[in-house]
Amino acid sequence: MRLSNTFVKTLREAPKDETARNGALLVRAGYIHKEMAGIYDYLPLGLRVIENIKEIVRQELNKIGCEELLLTALQNPEPWEKTGRFSEKEVDVWFKTELASGGTLGLAPTHEEPITSLMKNYISSYKDLPRYVYQFQTKFRNELRAKSGILRGREFLMKDLYSFHATEEDLDSFYKEVEKAYMKIFEHLSLGDSTLEVFASGGMFSKYSHEFQTILPVGEDTIYYNKNRTVALNKEVLNEETMKDLGVKRDELEETSAAEVGNIFKLKLKYSEPLNLKFVDQDNVQKDVYMGCYGIGISRLMGVIAEKFADDKGLVWPEAVAPFKYYLVGIGEAGTRRAEELYQENQDAILYDDRDVRTGEKFADAELMGIPYRIVISDKSLEAGSLEITDRKTGDTKLVKTLD
Amino acid sequence: MRLSNTFVKTLREAPKDETARNGALLVRAGYIHKEMAGIYDYLPLGLRVIENIKEIVRQELNKIGCEELLLTALQNPEPWEKTGRFSEKEVDVWFKTELASGGTLGLAPTHEEPITSLMKNYISSYKDLPRYVYQFQTKFRNELRAKSGILRGREFLMKDLYSFHATEEDLDSFYKEVEKAYMKIFEHLSLGDSTLEVFASGGMFSKYSHEFQTILPVGEDTIYYNKNRTVALNKEVLNEETMKDLGVKRDELEETSAAEVGNIFKLKLKYSEPLNLKFVDQDNVQKDVYMGCYGIGISRLMGVIAEKFADDKGLVWPEAVAPFKYYLVGIGEAGTRRAEELYQENQDAILYDDRDVRTGEKFADAELMGIPYRIVISDKSLEAGSLEITDRKTGDTKLVKTLD
Repeated sequence: MRLSNTFVKTLREAPKDETARNGALLVRAGYIHKEMAGIYDYLPLGLRVIENIKEIVRQELNKIGCEELLLTALQNPEPWEKTGRFSEKEVDVWFKTELASGGTLGLAPTHEEPITSLMKNYISSYKDLPRYVYQFQTKFRNELRAKSGILRGREFLMKDLYSFHATEEDLDSFYKEVEKAYMKIFEHLSLGDSTLEVFASGGMFSKYSHEFQTILPVGEDTIYYNKNRTVALNKEVLNEETMKDLGVKRDELEETSAAEVGNIFKLKLKYSEPLNLKFVDQDNVQKDVYMGCYGIGISRLMGVIAEKFADDKGLVWPEAVAPFKYYLVGIGEAGTRRAEELYQENQDAILYDDRDVRTGEKFADAELMGIPYRIVISDKSLEAGSLEITDRKTGDTKLVKTLD
Repeated sequence: MRLSNTFVKTLREAPKDETARNGALLVRAGYIHKEMAGIYDYLPLGLRVIENIKEIVRQELNKIGCEELLLTALQNPEPWEKTGRFSEKEVDVWFKTELASGGTLGLAPTHEEPITSLMKNYISSYKDLPRYVYQFQTKFRNELRAKSGILRGREFLMKDLYSFHATEEDLDSFYKEVEKAYMKIFEHLSLGDSTLEVFASGGMFSKYSHEFQTILPVGEDTIYYNKNRTVALNKEVLNEETMKDLGVKRDELEETSAAEVGNIFKLKLKYSEPLNLKFVDQDNVQKDVYMGCYGIGISRLMGVIAEKFADDKGLVWPEAVAPFKYYLVGIGEAGTRRAEELYQENQDAILYDDRDVRTGEKFADAELMGIPYRIVISDKSLEAGSLEITDRKTGDTKLVKTLD
């Protein structure tokens, strides 16, 4: 992409009400635009980061046999009334709206009810099980406060996966597969070392669920973990019983703030029972379908990665999610000519700063935008027959003959 | 994709209230699921068709310098109040909702107001112009009736492009480029021959706008066109003045039903003036920005293509949008072994019917699902050292040695 050809530019200031660092930096660097608290547009560079994160998640889920679909935002109250969740007492973040032809609709904060209802058309026998379906979908949650940039959105992008099983054992075994897939995803996103699988409240039907929490000073959760990180738990379940279950003592546990980037949950029969999702087993006996659900916050991950790696000069994207691998600057006539050639040969990987502005301004923008490698081509580098490449993260510069 | 591994299957019946052929066929063939009138989920095969259509549109828009972004569904009333369009008198299809922290929000039926407001951060000088930005976004329209399957949705997917110019001449010239790009898009979608550029009402600031209308018996519009198709107009502008402007007489015009698949519109200063989007020109004079907007109905296109090509056996997808190019069936032990190999070598192109069902059922599903080519491998075809390939559209069968 040529910077001269895009409307995107860095801004000197973020909106005054943007108090979260991830929000302020992403706005200033031209990745997002704030419509209202918790409601952000994704500009071209931001959309590329989002698509990169989605693709990493998609590949790992496809490897374990999951299928992608896309459910709707507008919700028919019917299945939600059967589970009791259309009531604000049960789900306190509904946005609701009125249909012109009569009746109230909801804007989906999550999708257990519609996916369970949908599957009644497709699951009737043990031969139809197990099934794993997921989507990348915009969720709507009517949060009273939303001051954490894109860490907590009123409109945000989530990956939600639902699994359907004939037996609880089969659910347990797929649940373990998802745990492994999730850790691979967080490793690909460079969050492997700082993301812990954490015991959390299991709700009505399980003793515990699991959250994936990335250690982060501005994270909204508080978690506790032992030194070698084999045990971690959310503050909400920090009690004698949990510590006994997990075999840890209070003084072995360290406290930290963290951001929840994923969660996995054994729903068991919680939704299949009231919504009547049944199958006939090998012995011709009708049974309820076991279910699991598994979320990953896609737009939140963009915010977590921004917060986690940023330094005083701006964003620092890991290569796997960066909108472009290289930020290219040509200096002088020969340098600019060679830069133009290099851009033509590697358009997909290069953000080419071909603007008519000072080199210092280009360098500052390269840093604020957080592109992993800055390439400079000048008379000096050309004399050495090379490109000068600077690593955004370490600041190290080296001369190379060609790009990898 | 292996049919044994997907939850998708063909259904014997569509929902009773699904009166539109596109909706009924797409539901029966396992492409979509109806939540409510005008509100549909996209199942894995349907999502692949949608993504194929998006990619065709994306490529043509990128070729003329357009940039992709993603705006929000939830709308701050502020800019809409400035243009008067938050009122139901002006826009009668709003879904509105209440924010828990106070205030009314809208669900975007279109995005002129937010994109114009956003661009105020990025356009200030003639050097920042022209700019072309687009998105694929879910739109919400509170239609009183929605009985046309996915031809008219309450929640539907649209591509909307907005252009920003220093002069009216520049807007005019880009408008022509979009006209050409649109015709290329409809040609790629196999709708080139049946899609006409039609004069339609221009609204407040232009005499005419242009619609792209695909001739279709169930289309909701009525259009008139001359024999060699050089002139076409919407019924809404069929009057003496328009016919004089276009140099045609009433008796030269034929009437037909059609579905609007795209529209392009010179907004000129309609939104930039009330929303105060200005730039400073070469002579340091402040001026309003000229704007154009250009829509394509992505989910509607899926419905139009379904309606247009379907026959009495089911769907017939053009290759460019089909979820898979081939539907593979192996017969007998050796045939199944060879089918398995062929699938392994061409997984991206093949929907492999490896289910334990009768061959006749497989053939019927291949036809209902509308996959362009059916491959059969049997003892007979193996003896000839070949694969038997049947064209879904023509029914012609031929033996080939290998896939292209």
